[in-house]
Parts: sequence; structure tokens; C-alpha cells
Amino acid sequence: MATPVSESTVGTADLETVRELAQQLRVDSVRSSTSAGSGHPTSSMSAADVLAVLVARHLRYDWDNPADPANDHLIFSKGHASPLIYSIFKAVGVVGDDELINGYRRFGERLQGHPTPVLPWVDVATGSLGQGLPDGVGVALAGKYLDKVPYRVWVICGDSEMAEGSVWEALDKASYYNLSNLIAIVDVNRLGQRGPTELGWDLDTYARRVESFGARAVVVDGHDIAAIDAVLADAEDVTRPTVILARTRKGEGFSETADVEGWHGKPFPADMADRAIAELGGLRDLRVRGPVPPADLPRPAPVERPVITLPTYDLGAKVATRRAYGQALAALGARTDVVALDAEVSNSTYSEDFAKIYPDRFFEIFIAEQQLVAAAVGLSVRGYVPFASTFAAFFSRAYDFIRMAAISQADIRLSGSHAGVEIGADGPSQMALEDIAMMRAVGGSTVLYPSDATSAAKLVEAMADLPGVSYLRTTRGAYPVLYGPDEPFAPGGSKVLRRSNADTVTLIGAGVTLHESLAAADTLVAEGIAARVIDLYSVKPVDAATLADAAQATGGRIVVTEDHYPEGGLASAVLEALSDGGVPLSVRHLAVRSLPGSGTSQELLDAAGISARHIVEAARDLLR
Amino acid sequence: MATPVSESTVGTADLETVRELAQQLRVDSVRSSTSAGSGHPTSSMSAADVLAVLVARHLRYDWDNPADPANDHLIFSKGHASPLIYSIFKAVGVVGDDELINGYRRFGERLQGHPTPVLPWVDVATGSLGQGLPDGVGVALAGKYLDKVPYRVWVICGDSEMAEGSVWEALDKASYYNLSNLIAIVDVNRLGQRGPTELGWDLDTYARRVESFGARAVVVDGHDIAAIDAVLADAEDVTRPTVILARTRKGEGFSETADVEGWHGKPFPADMADRAIAELGGLRDLRVRGPVPPADLPRPAPVERPVITLPTYDLGAKVATRRAYGQALAALGARTDVVALDAEVSNSTYSEDFAKIYPDRFFEIFIAEQQLVAAAVGLSVRGYVPFASTFAAFFSRAYDFIRMAAISQADIRLSGSHAGVEIGADGPSQMALEDIAMMRAVGGSTVLYPSDATSAAKLVEAMADLPGVSYLRTTRGAYPVLYGPDEPFAPGGSKVLRRSNADTVTLIGAGVTLHESLAAADTLVAEGIAARVIDLYSVKPVDAATLADAAQATGGRIVVTEDHYPEGGLASAVLEALSDGGVPLSVRHLAVRSLPGSGTSQELLDAAGISARHIVEAARDLLR
Repeated sequence: MATPVSESTVGTADLETVRELAQQLRVDSVRSSTSAGSGHPTSSMSAADVLAVLVARHLRYDWDNPADPANDHLIFSKGHASPLIYSIFKAVGVVGDDELINGYRRFGERLQGHPTPVLPWVDVATGSLGQGLPDGVGVALAGKYLDKVPYRVWVICGDSEMAEGSVWEALDKASYYNLSNLIAIVDVNRLGQRGPTELGWDLDTYARRVESFGARAVVVDGHDIAAIDAVLADAEDVTRPTVILARTRKGEGFSETADVEGWHGKPFPADMADRAIAELGGLRDLRVRGPVPPADLPRPAPVERPVITLPTYDLGAKVATRRAYGQALAALGARTDVVALDAEVSNSTYSEDFAKIYPDRFFEIFIAEQQLVAAAVGLSVRGYVPFASTFAAFFSRAYDFIRMAAISQADIRLSGSHAGVEIGADGPSQMALEDIAMMRAVGGSTVLYPSDATSAAKLVEAMADLPGVSYLRTTRGAYPVLYGPDEPFAPGGSKVLRRSNADTVTLIGAGVTLHESLAAADTLVAEGIAARVIDLYSVKPVDAATLADAAQATGGRIVVTEDHYPEGGLASAVLEALSDGGVPLSVRHLAVRSLPGSGTSQELLDAAGISARHIVEAARDLLR
Repeated sequence: MATPVSESTVGTADLETVRELAQQLRVDSVRSSTSAGSGHPTSSMSAADVLAVLVARHLRYDWDNPADPANDHLIFSKGHASPLIYSIFKAVGVVGDDELINGYRRFGERLQGHPTPVLPWVDVATGSLGQGLPDGVGVALAGKYLDKVPYRVWVICGDSEMAEGSVWEALDKASYYNLSNLIAIVDVNRLGQRGPTELGWDLDTYARRVESFGARAVVVDGHDIAAIDAVLADAEDVTRPTVILARTRKGEGFSETADVEGWHGKPFPADMADRAIAELGGLRDLRVRGPVPPADLPRPAPVERPVITLPTYDLGAKVATRRAYGQALAALGARTDVVALDAEVSNSTYSEDFAKIYPDRFFEIFIAEQQLVAAAVGLSVRGYVPFASTFAAFFSRAYDFIRMAAISQADIRLSGSHAGVEIGADGPSQMALEDIAMMRAVGGSTVLYPSDATSAAKLVEAMADLPGVSYLRTTRGAYPVLYGPDEPFAPGGSKVLRRSNADTVTLIGAGVTLHESLAAADTLVAEGIAARVIDLYSVKPVDAATLADAAQATGGRIVVTEDHYPEGGLASAVLEALSDGGVPLSVRHLAVRSLPGSGTSQELLDAAGISARHIVEAARDLLR
């Protein structure tokens, strides 16, 4: 390829320059994907005109200071069209042509197949469709209600992803919260991965759906630069979110691909790339930047972080850990960066304790768990410290969002109440029995499962400063407070609640099964069997040293009891920690091994084989 | 409480009887929940009139033969209102008053807190909101396109659950597939768990949303028996799904609770229950049944199950397991009960191989993974053998549906392609790295991870007859065929690919890491180190005996390598199996331990520390 011609434009480009810029974006999308041997050039080409107009003339963004809190936000929900966004980064001068062409999709490089926040101009990782708009809702909530800075949140969506229910959860919440600062642009190129989309170019139907969900729908020819410009100039509504439906052609700008099926996710062979570049007018090297935020925009108020006074509990008093969650969260609210969200069950999770004191920092997301997690991610983009709560079972609804939050390296805190068969009469649909496995498997996550109110409160406080996805599992019922107010708790720790030199077996539990383990130890000691008891409140990271000590001290005889299915939970954490210890293990693993029904907590714990008498029996059996 | 008055009505009741029936349903909802000490009487009372009319006059259902394929289906999506549906079961005479009052929510009883298919009249478990309608889409697809029987699918929804995106995925697919046999009734009682719903009684907005998604919206006063009757008589549309929006009052029929906040999920105290029953006109013991399906309705064609001829592969030929999935699925298609579904990536998962031959039994769900799994559940209700496929990472979008499928005891098969860092350049958003943990933790699940085309094809065939949720993890790239066509594979099995009496270390892998383990063994043997190599293609259930043999034979020295995050995957399965063996273990666990980026498969396997050279190094280290 010939050396590109250089030209530079600073400030707001005229429409003719924008037209050229759009062609450059197409050319660079073709070049980068052909060079990489993979990628999605045609999905990039359909949206090139819209993005060129947006970035050159409307997006208020200081590319030299991506952390400026007055910057608009650009969320690229159709992340597979990464050649386009990376070509923009080149056009604004923050990525070089060499990196674009030779770094794209290569090992160790930051221009990955789908954008992630390893790039400073990317708020959230995308690539699992239907997540950019829900994430954008979170950022827009921050802008309107917390930062109170008039930045706009622009979300670039594909048309295929409008089939994801999460998009409609997002629009529903965006209109409920009057997010006039949220503007989605849907690239309606009518072709999905394997053929036409459901709705094709039926923009009327898209518009009806959007309007019915309370957003303003605007239809535009997505290849008419002037029309796009007019629409974007008027994109911010007074009261409602706006959805711009851009009618486009996939592969636009090149006659061999424009509106042609069969080119999704396929780089052009080299000769075809040459033809495409020629038809697109050859290489360009425009440098174009749009407006920056006006200097007189308000900036967010500084965060206040006073000393937190946690609630304290009397030893032996019966307090549910979910109750302690709410009380600790309310105490943490003294920090002005702490925000809370709930999926319409705040009177069960007790996040209502926070909501009552800090209604301005509480967001009711109603029964939409995907949006619940996405809003937390969006709030974290703006530096807030979100705590999102619902029943532990229902975080399974948002697992893809939690997984993606980890890829976004978002710092979010999740609190799931009503875990395990302990919940009793409500039955299995409400029992989280796989949540520990699910949360442990999230990259970089922290998984905490306190057994009493003191530890719950302390761990909530610790979560506020944890990186990544952290998860707190709370229990429905009230159980005795085990620890005094000065007892420290930290992720990675554990507590040894019973210990003697005569210990011959180790009992490990967390949450309700710790209480069962303690009861079992009391029974066993009366029989002359000394049992070590470990409160494994930090399931990930796990306190391997304490576990190894216990295994060594008790001849490898261990009973792990958990109110969870057998796979991936407490026992997995214990076995992983002890897998290279050289101590022969005799582990009895008590867990929920069949589908539970309704009943009282004690009936169900007993039926599942995880109550004290089963622990006693397992310990006896190990010592036989 | 006094002995109820007995009265019996057979056939189609008149409206006055229906009015009485509705009051009986309310009374019985109050009685059962008060007796249980938990439950949702007010959520039951709001929908009592609608349900009374439906069951007494419109639902075509032979209560003595719930398996009749001509029966209508009644899916109770607002499962928390279980007192209502159980009161109906009493009213039609299939559950006794004693069971209703003294069995509800009790241990060991079938009238659980939320309905599950332990009851023969319940198709699917509900209680996680927003799932009944997506499940109903699956049943309606079966009725219209496979059974070709004109039964109707009635889904009773709450208004709070309309905030779940899955509801809109369902309506979108219902209209796309012209499911005129699907009728949703939304009980718009305007009060959620902790207060008013988002939309309250704004039925116009609900109607606009429903219509924009292609369904017919009908608004009715949900307490006007005659109006409800007229609407239900006309409920089935010619071409479109129908959504009946019933304006109701929560707690209706009792002045202390009708449209009163604060009574969600609360049984009435005994004295209040007495007042409620008195105001509702006292106890009744009506026995009311509605119409049964006409005898002349068509019945589904009998299933044809010819002998299946699986594809075969040449040893050493490079074939992707996802490719083998598609080919085996196409071969299985000779069975007329096998159906396939995909989320718009059938050209990547290779379910297109099936779609091309059996287009009438293939359902394109587009990019809506929750609906993908729910449709499979619905199809399984009618006895079909659904295989649903998408990228492995994107099943995380549907985890709550998969969890609930297990509670429904649905037999569904999921195939996730593009697992792990092996996928290469697309980056982490497309890499399933937590799917094995997620799928293993599903109650009663089977998790299969073949390494070659032969085993993949055989396991696909085995899945067709597996109960519960089964999951096949397939790999993007093509790797050598390891097994001849006569090699048997079954869930719970494994293969020992290298074995000698001199083995001093065991290498365990599955999928791509098995090939890396084999390469490592070849290197090691050249150094004089004999390594046993196990293909752990069945991750759940796991072949504990073979693992124990290997651990014993190789002095507990084991290298487990997996293209997955460290938690809950292959190593967890291995450690659980060996946790009570008495052999001291020295396990090296090679897994993906940091966030990957883009690159080639080999670069990423190597960077993650799960390539052959790392396995060699770990084995050497164990033997040092």
C-alpha cells in the first residue's frame, strides 16, 4: 500500500471533511482487518458515516484528557465493529497508523478483537451484544443525578442486538429516569451474522417500539452526512432518552459488499481490500477532532469520605446477615461516592436501610437484574462505588453482565440475599444453590459469605475498596452473632472458632453451615472428639494457610458443609487450596445433592444432609 | 374454620357460578397461606376473577388426563401467587382441601412455595419472574409448527415482571413466529413487592409496548366477570399472539387489603383471615371444571426413531468439534422428535447443518439467548428433544433460565462453541472461561467436553436420551481425530490415551488441553518420563474410578490443564473425585489465571500457561 497522504484538521470539521473522514474510517477498517486476517469490516463500514459526523462535530471529548469528568461518553455496543472505533482513535490522533494496522487483534496489543478498557477512551468492554445501552444507562444516571454534569452518553448499537431483552430493560429505565442525556444510535444495516435480521429495514417498527418504551425515536438515512449532522445537533432531548435509527447498508462504500449477504465477520482478501480501498478513494491520513467540553461546564462535587461508624452487634444476639448488610450499607453511605441499587426487593435485601437515608443515591431498577448489574457497571465508570442487591438466585439472570463487568475491570459490589435451602418455604426457584460457583468463576472476583452480623458488616465495608467484582452472600434467617465489634475481617481471611491440640477432625462451614458445624462440634466434644471449626467467610480468595494447618493438625480429616450444590462452592475452594499439600485427605463433603422443595429451614437443611447431625455423623465416620 | 359447603358443577359453569368460584379461590388462597404462615394471598386475590373465568369456561383441559396432547397449556408465570393456582387445582378436584390447607409450603409436600412440575398439571417451574412467557413461546412453537394441534398456551403474568427484558424477547419471537395460539394475561394490580410498579395502571403504555412488539393487546377490567369472559372467548387471534391486560386490584375482595400497599408476600394473621373470609362470603366447596379438548382435534404424528448413522472421521484428520456437533445433529435429525435452535450464529456453531436438512424443525431465535433456552424448555414440555446452540460464553446470558430448567426437570441439550482462550483473536468477551463451572453447578446436569470429532459426535447422540440439562462444550479450531468410529463414549466415562506400568505422572485434559497434554507426554517420554494421559471428556459425571487408579499408579502426581478459569472446572471435578482417596496428592493445576487479550490460539494458550511446554514443566517439577 502507498504511503498515505497527510492532512490535519483541528476543531470542528466541515461536512466535506467529515465525508472524507468517513471514507478514511472505511479504508482503515478494511486495512486493519485484512492485515489482522480477522475482524468485521462490513459492520464497520455501515456505521462509518454516523461515527464520522458524531466524532468530528458533536462528541464533546478531550482526547488528551479522557478522565475529564465533563467529557461526553462514547460506548461502542456493537463491539465487533472494532475496526471502526479503532480507526476513529487513529483519526483523532491517539493511536498511530502502525498500531492500527499491525497491532489490531495481535497478541499483547491493546487493539483487541473487541474493545476493552485497556484503552483509556473505552468505558466498558463490549462484544456480548445488548450490554452497551444498559451500561450507558448507568453512566447517564451518574451524569444526571450524581455528577450533575451535562455530559452526554452516546451508545452505538447494532440492529441485531435489539433482539436482546436487555436493550428494552435499558430503554425502560432510561425513560423512567428521564435520561435525556442518553442517546443511542442504532446502525440498522439489516444484516446479521448469518443472514437478515428479524426486522430488516422496518424502521417504523423499531421506532414504535422505542417510543412505546418512552424514548424519542428519530429516523435518519445513515449515509447522508448532512442529515446525520442535523439529527445529531438535535440529539439531546429535554426530558427523554433519544434513539436515532440510522438506516444503513452493511459493507457500504464498496460495491462488492454494500448490502451483500455473506460478509459478516470476514476480512477482505488482499486483492479485494485493494479494490475496496480504490473504490473508497484511496488512503487518507486525516486528523480530525471535534469539540471539547466547554470549560465552564460544572464539575462533580468532590467526594466526601468521612470515617465510617459501622453498626455493632451483641454477641449471641440473633441478627440476619442480610439485615447487617443493609445497616452497614447505610453506614457506608456517609461516603458520598457510595451508591446503592436494587431490583425491587430492597425490603428483603435491606438495601432499603440505605435508600431511606440517601434516596438521592439509591436507584430502584425494578425487576430487571441485567439492568441492575449494568447500571452498577455504568456508575463505576464515573468512579462511584455501587452496591447492587437482589436475591442471590436472581444474579444468575445477569451472569453475562457480571462476566463482562470483569472484562471491563469494573469495580462493582453485589449482595445476594436468601441463599440456599435455608430460605425454607419459598422453594427451589428462590434458592441460590449455584451462586458461589458462578461468582467464583468470574475473573478476578472476590466471594464473601459471612456467618454473622459482625463479619457481614465488616466485609461490606471492605467491599467498598475492593477492585473488580465482589460478591456477598447473605442469609435469610437470623443467627447468633459470633464476633465482637473489634474482630477484624478481610477478604482472604478465615476464623478458627474451635481449636485445641487434641483436634482430630476439621469442620468447615460458612453462613448457616458454620452454625451447624459449631453445633456439631459441641456434640462431638461431648463425645470426646475435639473438632477444629473454621469459618470460611472468604471463599475467594481462600485462606490456604489456615486450611493447610488444619488439614495437617487433624490428619487430613475434614468435613466441608455447604448450603449449595456440590460443584464449585466451598468444598471446591478448600480442595483447590489443599491440592498440593502432601497430606492425604479424607474429606467428607456435605452439600445439597438433590432438588429441594419447601419446608422449614431446619427441615430442608436436614433433608439435604447438611445439618449438625449429618456433620457429627460424617466426623464420626472419618474417625472410625 | 367451619366445614365448607359442598357443591359440584361439571362442564361449563355459568357466570354466577364463576363469580362464586372466584370468591372461593380468594378464600382458599387466604386459608392456605395463613395456614402455611407464608405465601402471597394478595397477589392471588388480584388474579382470581381472571383465572376463574379462564378455568371454568375457556381452558380446554382434561384434568384427568394431563398428558393429553390436545390439552391447552396453562403456565403460571407469576408463580408466587401459588395459592391461587393450587386453589384452582382444588376447585377442579385434583387436589383435596386438606392437601391445600395443610400441605401448602410444607416439607415433603408437592404444593411448594412456587409451582413446579412435581405436579402433573404444571408444565414448568416458575418463581423467577419473566420466564413463563418465554417458556410459553416454546410450547406454542411446538403446537403450531410440530404437533400441529390447535391447543392454546395461556400464560398468567404479573405486571412487575414486565420489566424483565425476557418478556420482550418472548413477545418479539411470538410475533415473529405468528404464535396466534399464545395468549398472555397480565394481572396489572399496580403493586410490586416493595411498592408501586413502574407503570402502575398505565395500561395504555403496556398496550403500546405490546402492540409495537407485534402482539394484539386487549385491555379488560380484571374484576368484571362478564367482560373477562367476552375477552377470553375472543382471545385467540388469527395471526398474532394476544396479550390481555387485566386491570386489577391487589388483595381484591377484602377491604383491608384491596389496593393497599404493604401486603405483598404476607399471609394474613388468623383473625384477619377470618375477617377476609367473612367479607368474601365465607367458605365454599365448589367443584368446577371447564371444557375438555374436542375429541376430533388432530393429535401429533407419532415420533419416528430410525437407527442413526453418525458421521465418521479418519484418525488424525483435523476436524473441529463444533463441526462434528453440527454433523452429528444433522444425523440425529432422522429422529422426528429432535429439534434445533440457535441464537443467530448457526454458521459458527454448525447447527446450520441441521437447519439445512430439517428447516421445519429448526428455530432461529436470533440474538436472544434467554428466549433460546426458554424455547428449548417449552419444546421439551411437549416431549421434543431440543438442542440449543450458541457461543459458549453467551449461555451465561441465560443462566437463570438454565437453573430454572433444572427445577422444571426439563430435558434440554445445550451446545456452546468457541470456548476458552483457544478462540484467539476475538478476545475475552467471546471466550467462555466460566461455562464449565456454571454448567456443573446446575442441579442434575451433565457436562461434556470432547476433544475430537468422534467423541463429539457420539456424545451428541448420547445427549438426545439424557435427562435434565446437558451441556456440550465445543472448540473453535480443528484438531486431530483421536478415536476410531467404533470407540464408545458415554457420560461418566473417560479415556486413558497413554498408559504404561512405568507411569509416574498423570496428565489430565479435555478439549484443546488434551491435545496439549498429549504433546507434553510425547516430550516427557523422550526424556524418559512416562506420563499417563486421561481424556476427561465427561466433566460431570466424572469417571472417579479411572482418576483414582491413575492417582494411585502415579503417586498422586497429577497435572490438570484446562482452558477455563481456575474455579469450578476440570480441576474441581478431579479434586472432588479424589478428595477421599487417601492418596497424598500433588496436583499442578494449569488454568487461565488472568484476563486474556487477543492473539493466536497458540499464543494465548501459551500466555495462559496451559500449553504443552507448561505441562511438561509442571510434570518435571512434580518429579523433581
